[in-house]
Amino acid sequence: MKAVIMAAGEGSRMRSTFDAPAPSKLLLPILGIPIIERVILAAKKAGIREFIIVTGYRGDAIREHLKDGSHLGVNIRYAENLQWKKGNAYSLFAARPLINPGERFFLLMGDHIFDPSLLSAFSEHITDKIKKAPESEAEQIYFLAVDSQPREELDVDEATKVFSADERITELGKKLDNFTGIDSGMFNFHHSIFDILEKEIEKGDGSLSSALQPVIGNGNLQAFFFQNYLWQDIDNKNDLEQAKRLLLKSLSKEKDGAISRYFNRRLSIPISAWISRFSITPNGISVISFCIALFSAFLFYFRHPLLGGLLAQLASVIDGVDGEIARLKFQESRFGAYFDSILDRYADAALIGGITAGCLLSETASPTAVFIAGFLALTASPFSMLAKEKFANLAGKDYIPHEQEGLFSYLPVNRDGRLAIIMIGGILNQLFAILILLAVLSNLQVIIRLIIARKYFQADADNIN
Amino acid sequence: MKAVIMAAGEGSRMRSTFDAPAPSKLLLPILGIPIIERVILAAKKAGIREFIIVTGYRGDAIREHLKDGSHLGVNIRYAENLQWKKGNAYSLFAARPLINPGERFFLLMGDHIFDPSLLSAFSEHITDKIKKAPESEAEQIYFLAVDSQPREELDVDEATKVFSADERITELGKKLDNFTGIDSGMFNFHHSIFDILEKEIEKGDGSLSSALQPVIGNGNLQAFFFQNYLWQDIDNKNDLEQAKRLLLKSLSKEKDGAISRYFNRRLSIPISAWISRFSITPNGISVISFCIALFSAFLFYFRHPLLGGLLAQLASVIDGVDGEIARLKFQESRFGAYFDSILDRYADAALIGGITAGCLLSETASPTAVFIAGFLALTASPFSMLAKEKFANLAGKDYIPHEQEGLFSYLPVNRDGRLAIIMIGGILNQLFAILILLAVLSNLQVIIRLIIARKYFQADADNIN
Repeated sequence: MKAVIMAAGEGSRMRSTFDAPAPSKLLLPILGIPIIERVILAAKKAGIREFIIVTGYRGDAIREHLKDGSHLGVNIRYAENLQWKKGNAYSLFAARPLINPGERFFLLMGDHIFDPSLLSAFSEHITDKIKKAPESEAEQIYFLAVDSQPREELDVDEATKVFSADERITELGKKLDNFTGIDSGMFNFHHSIFDILEKEIEKGDGSLSSALQPVIGNGNLQAFFFQNYLWQDIDNKNDLEQAKRLLLKSLSKEKDGAISRYFNRRLSIPISAWISRFSITPNGISVISFCIALFSAFLFYFRHPLLGGLLAQLASVIDGVDGEIARLKFQESRFGAYFDSILDRYADAALIGGITAGCLLSETASPTAVFIAGFLALTASPFSMLAKEKFANLAGKDYIPHEQEGLFSYLPVNRDGRLAIIMIGGILNQLFAILILLAVLSNLQVIIRLIIARKYFQADADNIN
Repeated sequence: MKAVIMAAGEGSRMRSTFDAPAPSKLLLPILGIPIIERVILAAKKAGIREFIIVTGYRGDAIREHLKDGSHLGVNIRYAENLQWKKGNAYSLFAARPLINPGERFFLLMGDHIFDPSLLSAFSEHITDKIKKAPESEAEQIYFLAVDSQPREELDVDEATKVFSADERITELGKKLDNFTGIDSGMFNFHHSIFDILEKEIEKGDGSLSSALQPVIGNGNLQAFFFQNYLWQDIDNKNDLEQAKRLLLKSLSKEKDGAISRYFNRRLSIPISAWISRFSITPNGISVISFCIALFSAFLFYFRHPLLGGLLAQLASVIDGVDGEIARLKFQESRFGAYFDSILDRYADAALIGGITAGCLLSETASPTAVFIAGFLALTASPFSMLAKEKFANLAGKDYIPHEQEGLFSYLPVNRDGRLAIIMIGGILNQLFAILILLAVLSNLQVIIRLIIARKYFQADADNIN
């Protein structure tokens, strides 16, 4: 399905709050990516490849920036709304020549950023509803995504409100006292909407909500109610800051170990926020994290355990940044995930090798004991990942440590935990203790996961037997 | 769906060829599992859990052996055909009280072993056909799985032949001169068949093909043509030996490395054939292979490289046996696959550790060089599996080395290849060379797979971006 993006307005509220360093507010970057590019890339992630951007105020700047979209991996065409001052119904109408008769399309606001999975969910909902509706009626049904539980920070006075007892929207406007949700600016229309607009556009105030009144009267505007998806209308500087905060907050991952969750993310997220303005790629950041770990290994070998330990922890923090930048900047890739996991394993091995060598040279423990501890730590180190990947392949679902392992998932034995052990051991100059701890914990984890896998696969009725 | 299994006949041809050590030919074991149990377990693997076994000759022995089926993870009920001498149409008719009106069911022969995926394919075909047929007609349609390309070894004189120009079978019998395929003994009926049997059973010779003539006349017996699936009617000793050969031949795996394919399987398959008569489990065999590898590691450490090398190769051969036994005896389990892969990684690490220690003690190379070579070999050793598992999870499909890697898949660096290197190095007493080779080849494989993953994920249009 195509998406029409409204990008004709002036953004005057934005201009009044601060001296925006861009010709159009839609080109203001949020964490390294201009607002309108975020809208396009989020829609792309939800499966949309064809865009029609309706420009008006400073359309030249927007066109020059986005071009034909090929550098973003999408196809962009432009419609021009010369009457952009009259209201956004005129902007939608301007897209008419670029939509085929019989075609459905999304309408998105150029200044509303959103979580791609919101658009995916909306899209599924629509497909489902259209499939169930009689063919003759389906063409006349339009959809609006409605936030039924808006965040407290939302400026309700400015928002367009929606009232609907069931799925049919019965009222839409800024001045409703009673409302069941907030207009998220995400619509889905059929080409038939243009005939309605043609008739209605001059009657009201030129706004889309005003032009949609007859559709609402017929009960043909349906609400898709949602909750807890990130979206943000960016009208002023506060909104911009709020959007940044929300995007950064969304970076913590379900699969995070305890150290990541409570410590690393507090450092990596601000670093990602800062790094996002540069053009370094996630894979580049993975390489930096790897090099830091390698350097840390050398420091252990050359008997600088304090510095080595601190650098190991830095490598751990930076290891979070690559994924954060990838998610923030729509640069996630499967090769990136593959590459990162290979580099991490080499980095871990280098650290254990460096610590073992440093420990042998310092002659604080018997060489045989150091050799064995280093061997056991090195052997078990990749199992943390290996066990998870093998489990996922066999079970057909991700292995989420805190789901499967309960309290055991707090053992500091995933990568974040192992690197924290190395940091603390380095600070205390207890290299042999690091090796013993890593050897014991990593091998203990293998056994725990073996028991869990046994229980899981035996309980899972859908056995391949 | 339920399956009715014909188990009423005497198996007189079997008795005339040799002195069978079982009261019924259906209880003769093939590779550790009685014929009829193979039929049940193959059907179970194709998703069937409810069985009706029609007994006649020595029904007591069959009931006593199979009981209610709970030890096989299925539910078995019995019907008795007192007139088993009259023909197999009587046997099918005896199942009538145990099939509900309106129900479809499979008919299987108690002496025909088959590949579970044949029944799965047959089942999918039926579901598809029934869905497309008008409801009133669907009840009257029956299906027969027909081998359109029977193996050369098949005794065509004895086989029931099928002729059909399209999907409708127009002739069925032993004496056809022109035929398009061979009756595999695998049918699918609706309960309505019993009314037809009731009328026809006394008219002909009591055989099912004779009783089905009116159905064939109406064009209601449809052929499901298949090719290249293993199945075997076991009438005499030759058939029994042939079945064994076919089952054993099917054990080579698509994912096998070159050493496995051309060397290990030639040893492991005869071992599996021999071991199949005992009740040792696949996991038990995995533990034996692990212990042999551990013992080999100790032999390297204690400077018996020749014996160590030979045992490493034995461990590699036995590592194939666990999977073969699992497949032969319907004992495949996801936990088994998980357990085996964890043990293999520890075995590999132990071998590299033993060789490194043995090499250090023999003082044939500088300790630093040995340490580094051992470290690099140990580090890269789990990547062979890790890279495959990670790839499979990200790509959503198995990583088959010879598909993705072309000629590189002949590098002896999968487990079979690494253990062969250890054997040859052990025989030649070149421990340092083993470590160098393993270090170089394993790390080279990591790089090759990184390049392949990059190409694959970039080419794959279905990118998560």
